[in-house]
Amino acid sequence: MQIVTLDQIRSMISMPEAIEAVRQSFIDVSNGLIDQPEPMQILFHDDANELVGDCHAKAARSKDKPYFTIKIATGFYRNPERGLPPNDGMVLVLSSSTGRPVALLQDEGWLTQMRTAAAGALAASLKATGSNGSLGVVGTGTQARLQALAIRESTGLNRLSVLGRHKNKIDGYINDMEQLGFSVTGAANAKALCEHSDIVVTTTPSTSAVLHAADLKYPLHIIGMGADSPGKTELAPDLFGAADIIATDNHAQCLQHGDFGVAVRAGSVEETADRSFCDILAGKAPDLDFEDARLSIVDLTGLGAQDLALASAVVSKLNLN
Amino acid sequence: MQIVTLDQIRSMISMPEAIEAVRQSFIDVSNGLIDQPEPMQILFHDDANELVGDCHAKAARSKDKPYFTIKIATGFYRNPERGLPPNDGMVLVLSSSTGRPVALLQDEGWLTQMRTAAAGALAASLKATGSNGSLGVVGTGTQARLQALAIRESTGLNRLSVLGRHKNKIDGYINDMEQLGFSVTGAANAKALCEHSDIVVTTTPSTSAVLHAADLKYPLHIIGMGADSPGKTELAPDLFGAADIIATDNHAQCLQHGDFGVAVRAGSVEETADRSFCDILAGKAPDLDFEDARLSIVDLTGLGAQDLALASAVVSKLNLN
Repeated sequence: MQIVTLDQIRSMISMPEAIEAVRQSFIDVSNGLIDQPEPMQILFHDDANELVGDCHAKAARSKDKPYFTIKIATGFYRNPERGLPPNDGMVLVLSSSTGRPVALLQDEGWLTQMRTAAAGALAASLKATGSNGSLGVVGTGTQARLQALAIRESTGLNRLSVLGRHKNKIDGYINDMEQLGFSVTGAANAKALCEHSDIVVTTTPSTSAVLHAADLKYPLHIIGMGADSPGKTELAPDLFGAADIIATDNHAQCLQHGDFGVAVRAGSVEETADRSFCDILAGKAPDLDFEDARLSIVDLTGLGAQDLALASAVVSKLNLN
Repeated sequence: MQIVTLDQIRSMISMPEAIEAVRQSFIDVSNGLIDQPEPMQILFHDDANELVGDCHAKAARSKDKPYFTIKIATGFYRNPERGLPPNDGMVLVLSSSTGRPVALLQDEGWLTQMRTAAAGALAASLKATGSNGSLGVVGTGTQARLQALAIRESTGLNRLSVLGRHKNKIDGYINDMEQLGFSVTGAANAKALCEHSDIVVTTTPSTSAVLHAADLKYPLHIIGMGADSPGKTELAPDLFGAADIIATDNHAQCLQHGDFGVAVRAGSVEETADRSFCDILAGKAPDLDFEDARLSIVDLTGLGAQDLALASAVVSKLNLN
C-alpha cells in the first residue's frame, strides 16, 4: 500500500481538475454507474450535549474504475481553540478485484474540502451571473475560502460579501480573499448579505438556521453546504417553502442529513419537492430554468462518488507498479 | 499518525487477551457504553452475478475510551486462486476529543479474524462441554482454524470434526490442526458432522445453507459466524424454528445481515425470538439455560465494539507520546 502525503496530493490536483472530476462523478451517479452505501457517521457532544465534532465515512465504487474508496473525514469545531485544524481525515483506495489496499491518501481532509468546493462550483454554475455577479458567503473557515475560489473558477465572479460571527475571523477572511484578488465586503447581517448577492453559499457547522426567508431579496440562488449531519442546519425551513427549484445531491441523504430534511420534517415542503442535482448536471432536467427562478436552492451533503473521483485522479498520477 | 504493521500487531495480542477484551466489549455494549453506527458495506459480484467479495466498514466509540475506531475488512473469496489471501483490511484509530488520526493498524484483516474467533469462543463457552467435548467446524479457511483455537482456549475441548467442499483443503486443515495438538476427523456430510459434535461453528462465505434441521442430533449448540452480509447464509431457516434459544450479537444487524434475518423472512421464526448475546455475557439473562437446551443458536455478525476492543488493546501498548 502506497502512502501519499498531503503535500504530494496538493501538488497533484488543481481546482479546475477537481471541478471536472466531480462533475463527471455526479453524471456517473445519474447514469447508475456508482455503488454508494449509506454513509457512516459518529457524532460527538460535550458534557452540555452540544455538538462538538463529527466523523463521516463514505464509500463508493464505480463500475468504470479498478478501485473503490472509503473516505474518512472528521470535523472537530473547537480544534482551532487548541491550535489544531478543525478538519482531518484520509482516503483509503482499494482494488475492486482483490480487495487489497492500494493507496492511503493522507489528505488530512483536504480532498474532502476540495470535492465539497467543487460541488459548490458546479451548483453555482447553474445560475449564470457573469463576472459582475456577487457571491455571499456565510462562514469564515476553510470551506468559506475554497467555495469562493471554486465558484470564481466556474462562474468568473469576483465580488464577495461575507457573514460571520467573530470580527477577527471576518477581518482575516476579508484580508486573505483580497490578497487572492477578490473584492470583499463584510455583511452586517443575513439580510445585508442577500441584498448584495446573486448567489449565497452557507459553509458553517451551525446547529440553528443562519438564513431565513425574511432575509431574502429575489432572485437568489442558494447553495447549502454545511448541514450534512442530523443536528446541523443552516437554511430555515421557510426558504424551502419559498423556493421554485430545490435540488439535492442525494434525495435520501439530504432527507436524513441535510437542510432539505429539516424543512420536510417542519412541514414546509413536500418530501417529493426536490430534483436530483446529479440528473441536472447530466442534462436530464431540461424543464428546470434556474435563470428564471426567483429562488433556487441546492442542498449538498456530499457523496462518496466525489471522494472516489478525486482519489482516482490522485491514484492515476501514482506509479503503482 | 503511527503506522503499526501486522507483525507488530500479532506480537501484541494473544488469543486469551483477545477473548477477554472482546468479552468486555460485549458487556460494554449491553451497558450502553458503546456508540456503533450501522456498518457500511459494498458487495462485489462477478459477470454471472455471483458474490465474489465484500468490504465492511465498522465504527465504534466508547464513552470509556479516548479513541474511536473505523475498521475496514475485505473478503475476496477467489483471491487464493491468484495466490493472495482472501482477507485484508486495516483499523484506523482516531482521537475522540480532536478527531485526529492516532494510529493506523495495518492488520491485513488479522484483528477482524481474532475478534471474530474470540466471539466464537465466548459463544461456545455458554455450553459447558468439558475437555471431552467435540467441536464440529464447517469450513476449512483461516476462521475455521482460529475458531478451533479460540474455542479450545475457552472450553478446553480438543476434538474436532471438519466439513469442507474440497478434499485437498480438508486434508490441509486436518494436517494443520493435528500439528496444533487437536484430534481431527473429516465428516462425510453435515449429518455426520453433527453426530460427532457438541458444538458446531460455521465459518463459510456460503450463499446457500450448509446446515439444516434434518442434519441435527440433539443436544447441539450452533454458532453461525460466516453469514454477515445480505446474500450470505449458512444456517437453514428450519434450524431457527427448532431452536430453544436464539442469541444475536446485534438484533438489527442480524435481521439485516445474518442467518437470523433469513429465517425471519422465511417465516420460520418470529422477529422477536432472539435474545441479546451481549446481555447474556453481561449476566442479564439468568432465565436462559444453555445446558438444558436441546438446540441453541448464536448468530454472530460482528460488532464495531469488538474492533475497538482489540485496537484499544494494541494502542495501549504503543508509545504514542
